Amino acid sequence: MKYIIIFLFASIISSAQINKEQLNIMPWPQNISLSEGVFPLTKNLKVNITGAPNSRIFIGATNFLRRLDGRTGLFFNQGFITGLNELPDAELQINCVRAGKIELYEDESYLLDVTANKITINATTDVGALHALETLLQLLQNNSNSFYFPISKISDFPRFTWRGLMIDVARHFMPVDVIKRNLDGMAAVKMNVFHWHLVDDQGWRIEMKKHPKLIQMASDGNYYTQEEIKSVVKYASDRGILVVPEIDVPGHGSAILTAYPEIGSKVVNLHLNSGEKGQQFTQIQSYSIERNAGIFSPTLDPSNPKTYQLLNEFFDEICPLFPGKFFHIGGDENEGKDWDSNPKIQEFKKKHNLANNHELQTYFTMQLIPMLKKHNKVLMGWEEIMTKNMSKDAIIHSWKGSNEGQPAGKSLADAAKGGYKTVLSNGYYIDLVFGVEDHYSVDPMPKNFVLTDEEKARILGGEATMWTELVTPETLDSRIWPRTAAIAERFWSNENIKDINSLRKRLNTVSFRLEELGLTHLKSKEGLLRNISNNQKSDALVDLSNVCEPIKQYSRNKGGTEYQMYSPLTLFADVCTPDASDAIGFNEAVNDYLNNKTNENQIIVTNYLNKWVNMHANLITLSNNAPLVQPLLPLSKNLKDISEQLLLKINNNQSIGASVLDELLEKCNSKEHADVELAVYNSLKKLVQA
Amino acid sequence: MKYIIIFLFASIISSAQINKEQLNIMPWPQNISLSEGVFPLTKNLKVNITGAPNSRIFIGATNFLRRLDGRTGLFFNQGFITGLNELPDAELQINCVRAGKIELYEDESYLLDVTANKITINATTDVGALHALETLLQLLQNNSNSFYFPISKISDFPRFTWRGLMIDVARHFMPVDVIKRNLDGMAAVKMNVFHWHLVDDQGWRIEMKKHPKLIQMASDGNYYTQEEIKSVVKYASDRGILVVPEIDVPGHGSAILTAYPEIGSKVVNLHLNSGEKGQQFTQIQSYSIERNAGIFSPTLDPSNPKTYQLLNEFFDEICPLFPGKFFHIGGDENEGKDWDSNPKIQEFKKKHNLANNHELQTYFTMQLIPMLKKHNKVLMGWEEIMTKNMSKDAIIHSWKGSNEGQPAGKSLADAAKGGYKTVLSNGYYIDLVFGVEDHYSVDPMPKNFVLTDEEKARILGGEATMWTELVTPETLDSRIWPRTAAIAERFWSNENIKDINSLRKRLNTVSFRLEELGLTHLKSKEGLLRNISNNQKSDALVDLSNVCEPIKQYSRNKGGTEYQMYSPLTLFADVCTPDASDAIGFNEAVNDYLNNKTNENQIIVTNYLNKWVNMHANLITLSNNAPLVQPLLPLSKNLKDISEQLLLKINNNQSIGASVLDELLEKCNSKEHADVELAVYNSLKKLVQA
Repeated sequence: MKYIIIFLFASIISSAQINKEQLNIMPWPQNISLSEGVFPLTKNLKVNITGAPNSRIFIGATNFLRRLDGRTGLFFNQGFITGLNELPDAELQINCVRAGKIELYEDESYLLDVTANKITINATTDVGALHALETLLQLLQNNSNSFYFPISKISDFPRFTWRGLMIDVARHFMPVDVIKRNLDGMAAVKMNVFHWHLVDDQGWRIEMKKHPKLIQMASDGNYYTQEEIKSVVKYASDRGILVVPEIDVPGHGSAILTAYPEIGSKVVNLHLNSGEKGQQFTQIQSYSIERNAGIFSPTLDPSNPKTYQLLNEFFDEICPLFPGKFFHIGGDENEGKDWDSNPKIQEFKKKHNLANNHELQTYFTMQLIPMLKKHNKVLMGWEEIMTKNMSKDAIIHSWKGSNEGQPAGKSLADAAKGGYKTVLSNGYYIDLVFGVEDHYSVDPMPKNFVLTDEEKARILGGEATMWTELVTPETLDSRIWPRTAAIAERFWSNENIKDINSLRKRLNTVSFRLEELGLTHLKSKEGLLRNISNNQKSDALVDLSNVCEPIKQYSRNKGGTEYQMYSPLTLFADVCTPDASDAIGFNEAVNDYLNNKTNENQIIVTNYLNKWVNMHANLITLSNNAPLVQPLLPLSKNLKDISEQLLLKINNNQSIGASVLDELLEKCNSKEHADVELAVYNSLKKLVQA
Repeated sequence: MKYIIIFLFASIISSAQINKEQLNIMPWPQNISLSEGVFPLTKNLKVNITGAPNSRIFIGATNFLRRLDGRTGLFFNQGFITGLNELPDAELQINCVRAGKIELYEDESYLLDVTANKITINATTDVGALHALETLLQLLQNNSNSFYFPISKISDFPRFTWRGLMIDVARHFMPVDVIKRNLDGMAAVKMNVFHWHLVDDQGWRIEMKKHPKLIQMASDGNYYTQEEIKSVVKYASDRGILVVPEIDVPGHGSAILTAYPEIGSKVVNLHLNSGEKGQQFTQIQSYSIERNAGIFSPTLDPSNPKTYQLLNEFFDEICPLFPGKFFHIGGDENEGKDWDSNPKIQEFKKKHNLANNHELQTYFTMQLIPMLKKHNKVLMGWEEIMTKNMSKDAIIHSWKGSNEGQPAGKSLADAAKGGYKTVLSNGYYIDLVFGVEDHYSVDPMPKNFVLTDEEKARILGGEATMWTELVTPETLDSRIWPRTAAIAERFWSNENIKDINSLRKRLNTVSFRLEELGLTHLKSKEGLLRNISNNQKSDALVDLSNVCEPIKQYSRNKGGTEYQMYSPLTLFADVCTPDASDAIGFNEAVNDYLNNKTNENQIIVTNYLNKWVNMHANLITLSNNAPLVQPLLPLSKNLKDISEQLLLKINNNQSIGASVLDELLEKCNSKEHADVELAVYNSLKKLVQA
């Protein structure tokens, strides 16, 4: 009897035909074909590795086994993979021609072939093979009783060689484990550059053995030891990821100048000081770690030889920690206020025939190139470093766009035309908390500028930027994921892969699976809500969080002074995320209903409205023992009020009159409550105006 | 108008009378008195520190502010506290007479005085002041609109000086961040000894610069660098916690012997080997890292001088990492099999007049005492090290009890009577996954043995032990917390504090607050359930997890071989915890109903039963797309079947007959499904038999 069941069961699985639409692969591969049938997973699955790979593939393959085992509970027999050709008969064979290098333009391609009883991965390098293992994990399917892979052939390679994520650890320090879990997330979606923003006005984050003042005076005790940095670089390398450190100069200099005020540009106050041997002049300058957010004037003095001496010494200590070829020196947002008001610097400008501060900054930046070249490093900087005299070896990081008063992609195109290699971040500022569609629709290859093939080739790719003025280790993941997976697809996949519905559907599963890596973007919500609700169980609070999004584009921290770097980021706005799930669902429901007013479609809409009417009553009850719920009540009241009227309108064809309805609607467009906005406003408006 | 509201509001708060029963302090203080009125919290709360404390108080007070700010969202003005007397007018004044030392018998007492407009903490040492801050955080109260502290006076000190938690990082490695968040948890409940079980058959976890083979061959790459160990020791010290390292010898030796087989006790096989210059004898011994759980024979050779040479070298490298006075050398569970079968060792025994293996082990252990004394360390070991010749300086760690065939507390009493200082762990084995009541009822001072005051004084306290054969970094916290908070109360508070209902009520809040420290014992459940449900939302699965507990006392891993150290611990049994919440609620409901069969009491009981009937149907639906739910269906079916019959019995006074009912009931007593048991069995039985 047992045999018959197994036989039947196997035949059910093997006849399954999976469609591409069922797959939740992200980034979508360049070529994929599916055939009928499956490779059934059992506890006997084993992995064998051949060829001449870097040993990172052993770690990657072992992690693959553990992740698959965690999902399926199959208790795989194989424990640790530590060498070549350990199990020649294994069902999963990985062959790598040679060891991959962690650098740009490395061959990251792979072929993945799943048949009914064998899986083969062929790749030039172990980096490609790691990508194949991530794709294979994403291929996993199940029925009610078992797990399997569909029979398939995939040939894949990246569209862009620079697929980056920047994390700012200066505004809010992010411990090593937080960085590492995000490196795992990057690897899962085939990103390959981690840009580590290590220094800014709010802190210096690298242990400096020869200049300990930097961490003693400018880190609040929050910094990475050099050993930790090495361990992050190794961890990244094991996942095929290059680490690019950033030391932001000459602006964003408060932290550096807190330790070394003598290289600051601020005009020096001269005080008379009566020393033992008569009168002396003493220079009094002072800087302190910045606690607010914004653009500040502390700037290194480009006319002071000591500035270059110190930076040279810093780089001598920092460069050996990072084996990669690129070193980011920032260079952004230097407004030059302290330069303008410093006569010594003005004199220096004249002496060197530097027409303006931009030229002065170029002078400064050019001094850094040989300091880095000595360590075999290429200088990279934000687009402000690009001037007519800037070395063509520098890499231009394009970040400005329409918000900064220039056409999107212009600086990228200018850089490419000007002979610079360049990377795009405008459009990928995930800290603005826009929805995923905004970022997904931005292509790193600008459409509104005509570029030659040679110029296009200088566009290395793109990079999502996670600035952390309003982000803590607890909320970081929910600000990066899952949206960054969609950006990763933009960087890797064919430019024609852009269907937003397919993206949303796949993102749902990809997001869920990312948590197996230790990421907390979904589960951190529960803990934060528990605090807000004062440990009271509440579906109402969850419901409200599913229709609210944090207010966008830096409007939460008006002028940069509402929140300090030590302010509580445990509030409702920190729970809410872009792409509020019920807002998306409600929008679909409203569109369906307005297109086709069936009873069924109407019920879906009115279920939402009824939910929000009840939600408000429940939140009032909840607030009796939860002060942090009080500020949310105006939001839920506004949503309740319009929902009640819309229910009357839809169900009973009653209306209180257009002007009152409009007034209620507009209350739902308020951004005055709890730093969030009701993400259902546009859908409500459609119903009001229907 | 605004003023009037504020005035009214203030008067409402200040007239509030808080009862002791409302407070959720744990461990409960030695003396507490409450008065009418409150200290209202505002964003102006500031902290000032005076006296001559260790600088750890600055870190502790800053963390206090951030935690309180995170709870209340008040945006305190004060950022970092870095020095003495920074804000003499602050509402919260902390005075410490002198710097605390991280050692036993240190003064940990404190006085906490909350008045309507001032809070004063007086302590001999900063360690006491840190305890006061934890108490103050636990004092926090709120109404619907605001937070406040009740006017109160607390004078507090610990009952025992050793209030420990052991974490085994050999069976499953626990990264630094996991250790640190648990140190925060310990500090929150005033525990002061972290016993770090760093070496066992399954791995060596300390970087060894002079003996790199230990991590190269016996760690799977999972170890702490020496810098990381120092950072943990510093982190612990900043929280008033002493770190006691354990290197378990001479048994539990597989990892050490994997690197150094030449000091093993296994009988050597002699093989003939034809070398170039004629025949040679070659010793072939081999050990490997253990993957299963249990007691294994690999044991260090006490007759080999190289054993002592190596251990001496190990200790020379390890001791300086741990400034504390105590060094745990394990010494447990050496069955001596390899000693018995090794003629050389038998000969050694005879030569040294050692009557048995126990005496031989004492010989071995005595060699270690001077090695440790050289580093100013006192040797501590599990109770097996206690023999008539053992030095009275050694500290005896009592762990055996009725499970091991001896009266609970006997070895503790024997040690105290024998002149040894001693620590109790029997009764605090939290890895057995028993309910909190079991541990809470065990007192470190044994009641069944008569001890003199001098002997009693040798009982230093107790220690919860977290062995990790079946525990990963993801589940560790839920195996330690919140039960360990109750154990901490047993170690700190007066022995008369033992009301289980009060404990359960307070533990609910304490558990919730512990997550603000980064602990994941509550929120990790959601992620694991998401994996089991295959990303389907399901209240039914949550409901089932709330009536199931993991099967207890090592029965989950039969013979130690069902799970290997790399097996998936992402299953339903890993989600479930001791003290299943609905099982506790249902038990109360059943007791109430059977005592008093009111309609109201009946409804509470039948609501549970109806919930479980519906749950089963929902789980079947869920299982259609979730293979990991399949093994749970027999459990939910058993619970559904008995629930249906009990509903008929209770609501309609119908019965299918006692024998059928008993049969259905007994199915709910099965431990055969999914490594869990239905924790409602006893309550169901009461209803069946009623």
